[in-house]
Amino acid sequence: MPLSSLAHIPVSCSGGAYQVSVGPGALELLPEAVAKSGARRVAVITDSNVGPLHLSRVLSFLPPDSPHFIFPAGEASKHLGTIGEMLDFLAREQLTRSDLVVALGGGVTGDMAGFTAAIYLRGISVLQLPTTLLAAIDSSVGGKTGVDLPQGKNLAGAFWQPRAVLCDTDLLSTLPRRILFDGVAEAVKYGVIRDAALFRLLATPGGFQENLRQVIARCVEIKAEIVAGDEFDRGERALLNFGHTLGHAVERESDFAISHGQAVAIGMVAVTRLAEERGWCEAGLHAQIAQALELYELPVELPYPWERLAEAMLHDKKRRGNELTLVVPECLGRCVLKTLPVAELAGERLLP
Amino acid sequence: MPLSSLAHIPVSCSGGAYQVSVGPGALELLPEAVAKSGARRVAVITDSNVGPLHLSRVLSFLPPDSPHFIFPAGEASKHLGTIGEMLDFLAREQLTRSDLVVALGGGVTGDMAGFTAAIYLRGISVLQLPTTLLAAIDSSVGGKTGVDLPQGKNLAGAFWQPRAVLCDTDLLSTLPRRILFDGVAEAVKYGVIRDAALFRLLATPGGFQENLRQVIARCVEIKAEIVAGDEFDRGERALLNFGHTLGHAVERESDFAISHGQAVAIGMVAVTRLAEERGWCEAGLHAQIAQALELYELPVELPYPWERLAEAMLHDKKRRGNELTLVVPECLGRCVLKTLPVAELAGERLLP
Repeated sequence: MPLSSLAHIPVSCSGGAYQVSVGPGALELLPEAVAKSGARRVAVITDSNVGPLHLSRVLSFLPPDSPHFIFPAGEASKHLGTIGEMLDFLAREQLTRSDLVVALGGGVTGDMAGFTAAIYLRGISVLQLPTTLLAAIDSSVGGKTGVDLPQGKNLAGAFWQPRAVLCDTDLLSTLPRRILFDGVAEAVKYGVIRDAALFRLLATPGGFQENLRQVIARCVEIKAEIVAGDEFDRGERALLNFGHTLGHAVERESDFAISHGQAVAIGMVAVTRLAEERGWCEAGLHAQIAQALELYELPVELPYPWERLAEAMLHDKKRRGNELTLVVPECLGRCVLKTLPVAELAGERLLP
Repeated sequence: MPLSSLAHIPVSCSGGAYQVSVGPGALELLPEAVAKSGARRVAVITDSNVGPLHLSRVLSFLPPDSPHFIFPAGEASKHLGTIGEMLDFLAREQLTRSDLVVALGGGVTGDMAGFTAAIYLRGISVLQLPTTLLAAIDSSVGGKTGVDLPQGKNLAGAFWQPRAVLCDTDLLSTLPRRILFDGVAEAVKYGVIRDAALFRLLATPGGFQENLRQVIARCVEIKAEIVAGDEFDRGERALLNFGHTLGHAVERESDFAISHGQAVAIGMVAVTRLAEERGWCEAGLHAQIAQALELYELPVELPYPWERLAEAMLHDKKRRGNELTLVVPECLGRCVLKTLPVAELAGERLLP
């Protein structure tokens, strides 16, 4: 397919704007993006799943002898020790402030390579090459980077915008179905928080599969819009956390056996149910969302007792003193923030 | 002494302005500064030298049961492992985004507590309470935070401005003379780069000792001026590195047996000598600077062969490709940046 079939979505942020390019063959833009960055050297960071699939092709677009670093795939690698190894790699390879890191992979890779770039020499440029749907529509865009601490997910990190994001939809074709569908949970999220038409497309059998590029582009557009208004997550950006506060607790309690997308699916349905029961939105909305998610084999029931999850949510980094802000839908395409005392949430009996 | 004898120096930066308060009793402003920050909880980070001296007094100004973390004093602690322990401490104490970290100590403490605050939950507020002259006039102001990597000093970090800096000159009275004098090297630096009168004051026996508050305030003013013009270190801020590129190499080669101030003293004299020999400044300037430094028992001769230091400078984080930018004086009170090919510097034979 010609490169003209790519969608280019601009993202505005404090450090200037960058572009997310979406479509088949977007990877071919890599030499141009590197040239534009002014980097003399480029270091690739990827994981043990993605490396064997895509690293050699990516390297073929980079200057000869560009170094690379491969870490063991999985959320278990997402800790400060791995960041230390990545920093050592960049220092050993003597990358300078004017050089570039390429993050090749899913959310874990993008978050960690982005964080490493954010703190190496107090910040060098990073370019994101997402290889999962989740990374394409969520984690690679907007500049949130980080690692987990023993106490919870993403508890350390930085805001560090990429130089560019190249989302080559051809790379997504190698994804196992479960991993692809994991990302659809985030796409459904964008529909519920901002775009009822997108939600309806995803709720139609085949709608997602037949419109992959369009779905990704629309999700990135929504994210870009929200991030531009609140880059440092002090207000509106919290809407992107629909389903996430509870989702993070589910992930953590399962020791990450339940994936991020699955956990967010569970979280979105549960919080919508809470909203219905409190009269914040029309009855039946949670069932509508659950139905859409089930098209993609995503779970929708709470796998643990509520008390256990409420305790885990106490560690959520969005907690502010004794209050927690939840994102709740008012209707399809519109969500609002509701701040609740943690004690009230812990005592909530209406949820399953 | 009444608090009215404090000097207050505003520092402008991208996230708004903050104030550096200098003078005897500045610590008494702590409750007011905490109230202004809006923090509900305050966590103190300090080291095993400073903790026994000042921690209980600092805690007496904070909310009851404010937690604290003490790490082993010294540059050897300045690595990512200690940052991990500090992050765990904050997470365990469940500090939220609206809370505050207090960095109580010298440069190592300020750099590490500042960096920890910069990345915990992607950034929470930090207040600096410097207890060394070096921290008071240099590291606590301007927002550079970080840690060392095995490959070199301060190779990982973040720009993270404090909420406020309270520099209580009474705390400096407990400093061993060697540590106090270490900081004078940085004061001399400010004189050479920006203020000949300050230099002359420091070059006068007793001038420093009799004008401690004024010297600190003037140094902070100069730093604030330079930082305001170049917060993210892309140009003019490099002037603050006068003597540092070589100084860092000396520190590293000595395995930190030679202190930062001593190393900077050595670096300033050596680079001024280079500047004289190339005709970039008047002859005799390096002897003038050396004489001032020797008043404070600071070393001024290169302790290692030049080749060894040139090799170490290759790892400097300011290196840009094959070039290194050095700060060289034109005259007392004015310095400029000179960019040299690394190869030329390595081949430099004029230096001792």
